[in-house]
Amino acid sequence: MASLDPRQFRDLDPGERLLMGPGPSNVPPRVLQALAAPCIGHLDPGFLSVMNETQQLLRHLFQTENALTIPVSGTGSAGMEACFVNLVEPGDEVLVAVNGIFGTRMADIVGRLGGRLIRVDAAWGRAVDPAAVAEALRGRSPRVVAVVHAETSTGACTPLADIARLSREAGALLLVDCVTSLGGMEVPVDALGVDAAYSGTQKCLSCPPGLAPLTFSSAAVARLEARRHPVVSWYLDLGMVRDYWGNERKYHHTAPVNMIWALREALRLIAEEGLAARFARHRLHHRALVAGLEAMGLEMLVPESERLPMLNAVRIPEGIEDAKIRRALLREFGIEIGAGLGPLAGKIWRIGLMGHSCRSQNVLLVLAALTTLLRAEGFRLRGDGLAAAQAVYAAC
Amino acid sequence: MASLDPRQFRDLDPGERLLMGPGPSNVPPRVLQALAAPCIGHLDPGFLSVMNETQQLLRHLFQTENALTIPVSGTGSAGMEACFVNLVEPGDEVLVAVNGIFGTRMADIVGRLGGRLIRVDAAWGRAVDPAAVAEALRGRSPRVVAVVHAETSTGACTPLADIARLSREAGALLLVDCVTSLGGMEVPVDALGVDAAYSGTQKCLSCPPGLAPLTFSSAAVARLEARRHPVVSWYLDLGMVRDYWGNERKYHHTAPVNMIWALREALRLIAEEGLAARFARHRLHHRALVAGLEAMGLEMLVPESERLPMLNAVRIPEGIEDAKIRRALLREFGIEIGAGLGPLAGKIWRIGLMGHSCRSQNVLLVLAALTTLLRAEGFRLRGDGLAAAQAVYAAC
Repeated sequence: MASLDPRQFRDLDPGERLLMGPGPSNVPPRVLQALAAPCIGHLDPGFLSVMNETQQLLRHLFQTENALTIPVSGTGSAGMEACFVNLVEPGDEVLVAVNGIFGTRMADIVGRLGGRLIRVDAAWGRAVDPAAVAEALRGRSPRVVAVVHAETSTGACTPLADIARLSREAGALLLVDCVTSLGGMEVPVDALGVDAAYSGTQKCLSCPPGLAPLTFSSAAVARLEARRHPVVSWYLDLGMVRDYWGNERKYHHTAPVNMIWALREALRLIAEEGLAARFARHRLHHRALVAGLEAMGLEMLVPESERLPMLNAVRIPEGIEDAKIRRALLREFGIEIGAGLGPLAGKIWRIGLMGHSCRSQNVLLVLAALTTLLRAEGFRLRGDGLAAAQAVYAAC
Repeated sequence: MASLDPRQFRDLDPGERLLMGPGPSNVPPRVLQALAAPCIGHLDPGFLSVMNETQQLLRHLFQTENALTIPVSGTGSAGMEACFVNLVEPGDEVLVAVNGIFGTRMADIVGRLGGRLIRVDAAWGRAVDPAAVAEALRGRSPRVVAVVHAETSTGACTPLADIARLSREAGALLLVDCVTSLGGMEVPVDALGVDAAYSGTQKCLSCPPGLAPLTFSSAAVARLEARRHPVVSWYLDLGMVRDYWGNERKYHHTAPVNMIWALREALRLIAEEGLAARFARHRLHHRALVAGLEAMGLEMLVPESERLPMLNAVRIPEGIEDAKIRRALLREFGIEIGAGLGPLAGKIWRIGLMGHSCRSQNVLLVLAALTTLLRAEGFRLRGDGLAAAQAVYAAC
């Protein structure tokens, strides 16, 4: 056996960051404390009752009565995969609306599963146009219509009501990515008639990454039960996973116990704040941030009516070096913001205001830091970003 | 929006358990503390350096130089799935040796992936016989030979050397489940010529469940690169996952940051103890436990030469009610042991001695508790289990 000197690995000290990127967001102390509670067995009565509570809290957040509402044992991407592998069989037609990285990923997954893709593209940085979906659905009845509610790669919000109606009329199940929206704005699953939705814990829930909240309507469950082929993924086969989360408590895989402790605490914090207050908080700080950025002379990527509150994509001014500014934000101010992805790499910054990170002091600090750094780069600020943000707060 | 009274969800208090089942095992305080360190970004330089260290520590544990050695973002079952989805293509022949639940699961996964299964069955509670593998391989050259090193459902250990040689001779890749063995006994990946191995964090690593350590040899990576079809799982596609864990640091999915903190700390504890000392500790407490159980008149399921040190399956005596004893162990003593699974349900108990749970005080307590409870049920103990265990400790 080779030996390894353990002294080369120092005590863990990740430092402190202000997480204002596309996720993870800052995790509140109560959630970290719950995470570190003792681990007990995944079939222990004490754990089973926490599972029930976690499901109840998740249903509240998704605004649904769906029985099959659980955290998938993986990150948000595992939630996406769980929806597709369970609802799509080889040869099924699937409409995917693509307006950023996450729609692109959905289309990729449909191909891997042998689905027949109907792709509706929209510009990156814009919402998906329901008229384009209607056009693509004409005379067609795909198995699933899939759309990203909150496109984390661009900050664009696609309203769901029209697309939900079109899906219903076409006889398709509606599958929604709400990784970035859940917990920061309305995701009324039952009221809209969403059939499958998934999220992640590290965005507006402010829980560490590692779980993917998911909900399936009874129509989605019926589809699962009517499959002709087994689900290609054993790990994400919801037919078996729900026998563990349901009354049977039949062992499938070992649940990530401590992550469930943390999720329950994050959901409890959300219930304490109240959904309406929480969503209003996200809208307020978004307005303040945007007012500040625009006052400074920066330009938002997404048109005002299509902007997400929790993810703000701002164009990098001409002549300013993307990585240099982000590095300085991290080193000098301890602030993480996100880079652009794909065709938007080097062109935008993504400033997150998610969950616990969505606070006035963070808005003011990121504006102050950007003001300092851009000025040092010779960028001529148009006006006072801090004053503009403070005016929003003063008026509310 | 429906309202939910948050006061119905009380402060988390999972209590304390002595985890002596098939996993999770007890998590040491240092690991819980690391788990609760602040969350930072998955592309933060501070996190990237912890990723590197975690990989280095995992290589030490797997006794390998494999570059592709990572924790998969899911539980041990996700590790199993990651190995199969990346190495098996539709139509590929795959030999699976089945001597318990986890071999059965491997065979299930091969079917889902469209592989052609060559199944070698062994009795539940026994090792896989290399002669049966040799017989099944005669004139065949499957893509993969898959075997469970430590069958958690029975406590049987299948030695790997002969099966590794046979796989090599047949031109197959050797895929090994070491979920329960890794960290508690030798898993010398390079010395044996194992091509793909996966584990879980909640067994002998004594880290909470949620990650699956995995290692791929260069031959396994070459197979991955030579695939004719895309990997059916986007989430577990190691071609992309390794671009994030490798030098490129290309975003794939958000890593479960806090779980990585915990894993690194658990691996650091292992490096501090030293592999040889740790494995000797598991053997010692296993011997003491078995001596105690046998002295009491209980019978082990697995023949002595095929027993795992960390998972001890003992037959439930005639007339004793399985669930009643396990319930009493949990309620009166706070001890969790495991039930039998599948055909062994109601017939065996599985007593784990994994990682941090593998200690003399736990051995003595579980023997004392079983003595008390079995006596109360009218079971006539043959002799003094505690004295027998203590004799093992005294002799060492």
